[in-house]
Amino acid sequence: MSFLRQLRQATDDSDSFLCVGLDPDPNRLPESLRRLPVAEGVFRFCRTIVDATATVAAAYKPNLAFFEALGPEGWRVLHRVVGAIPQGRIVIADAKRGDIGSSASMYARALFEELGCHACTVSPYMGRDSVEPFLSYPDRATFVLARTSNRGAEDFQELFVEGDPLYLHVCRAAKRWSDEKQGTLGFVVGATDEAGLRRIRREAPQAPFLVPGVGAQGGDLQMVVRASRAGGAPLLVNSSRQILYASSGPDFAEAAAAQALSLRDRLNDVDRETAQKSS
Amino acid sequence: MSFLRQLRQATDDSDSFLCVGLDPDPNRLPESLRRLPVAEGVFRFCRTIVDATATVAAAYKPNLAFFEALGPEGWRVLHRVVGAIPQGRIVIADAKRGDIGSSASMYARALFEELGCHACTVSPYMGRDSVEPFLSYPDRATFVLARTSNRGAEDFQELFVEGDPLYLHVCRAAKRWSDEKQGTLGFVVGATDEAGLRRIRREAPQAPFLVPGVGAQGGDLQMVVRASRAGGAPLLVNSSRQILYASSGPDFAEAAAAQALSLRDRLNDVDRETAQKSS
Repeated sequence: MSFLRQLRQATDDSDSFLCVGLDPDPNRLPESLRRLPVAEGVFRFCRTIVDATATVAAAYKPNLAFFEALGPEGWRVLHRVVGAIPQGRIVIADAKRGDIGSSASMYARALFEELGCHACTVSPYMGRDSVEPFLSYPDRATFVLARTSNRGAEDFQELFVEGDPLYLHVCRAAKRWSDEKQGTLGFVVGATDEAGLRRIRREAPQAPFLVPGVGAQGGDLQMVVRASRAGGAPLLVNSSRQILYASSGPDFAEAAAAQALSLRDRLNDVDRETAQKSS
Repeated sequence: MSFLRQLRQATDDSDSFLCVGLDPDPNRLPESLRRLPVAEGVFRFCRTIVDATATVAAAYKPNLAFFEALGPEGWRVLHRVVGAIPQGRIVIADAKRGDIGSSASMYARALFEELGCHACTVSPYMGRDSVEPFLSYPDRATFVLARTSNRGAEDFQELFVEGDPLYLHVCRAAKRWSDEKQGTLGFVVGATDEAGLRRIRREAPQAPFLVPGVGAQGGDLQMVVRASRAGGAPLLVNSSRQILYASSGPDFAEAAAAQALSLRDRLNDVDRETAQKSS
């Protein structure tokens, strides 16, 4: 089944375009889990968060940095966490890999075949041969970093090349490369830059967006949905810390579920409003 | 001990600025090792290559893609391989990570603390907060991707921004960021682009270069050394496949040793010639 169809099913089934980011910081685990061996505590934390949010989240995005920081155990925990995510949900490996063709093929194998994710994030700095091996997988999606949500995004992504910011050149090039490939091309676009969202949506009207960086305010959500959902284009809005660390007490799972539910509902509200206004 | 001093000791001790890239492809292992379980075969292959080349190599560069492609076992094998590299040699994690600050800190912890490498490669696309956590480690080196050796390098790295290619903007920005940090800044610069090597060396006269992409020809080596060793600036020239797969027969270790020795000697020859000419 194509990635876009899988995404639509997950979105319909959960009535949500929320993606829950799994960035498990051992220092922020709830008291009860901090007593376990670190790797086990991290696994149980992630599994509990997944179980608590699975009815209202369309996707999960494990952040590989947090698993690798656990040492040689890390990837084992990562595999267990991915295995604990229910079948009907999208799993995006937030890996931001980017290397020459032969290495990129190995990374793609690691993330798509070994880890079994539906999608991953990829860094474009090394160009075509660093992205194509991911795009070659049919039924998988490759979210290329375009305009990210962090402060440093301005350092290079916003540099102007022949009148356009670098990130637009990245989008256009990635679109050309994906034309010859069977996989789905998506983009990572931060919720912190409205201009970026609008420009990239104009450039790629049907591409799925993975949008990190939303705050607690509905205003941001409204802007994100307005700028990127034109015509019902596919969208996943990611939230990590706000959900994971909603509470550090014994009620952490309930607090995470409540946060996820609230964010899901607010997203749906602004989406319906936006759809009504534009119709 | 500072990274540059460790590098000098490794270079002096081995009389070499050769870096051996560890990109173990399970399909290219020698017959005898292919009979073992894959992870064990890969580990023994790497350890044998390290043992066979340790007297003539200053550094080793495990390529994380090839280990991750082994699945959950991969990072365990990687740890064992790093543990098998002799003390006096530099270990560079070829990871090309690049993520927002909090994630970059986790990657730095994974590579410098958990894996215990002296250095790693980092992708600059996400800007300052994605690179600084690596540069914050004193006595470690961060090799920022500048002008890479692959074909796709031209796609974005060579785009012109205010009269200079993007990779030069990357070098200048990274230099500014490293001024306030205690770690050593280095650059990845491909052997395939003489102009890049010369420009980046002019921009960063004392920064260590990690140069992948040398071919079998002495001509390339001569160009690389001339373009990047001005004033005895620190340099590591990487070779991976040429050494690893010098033979697929039972003599693979001897063939790898012979290739490494020959490359080491040719590098030293052109280095001495170049030093004489310029003196």
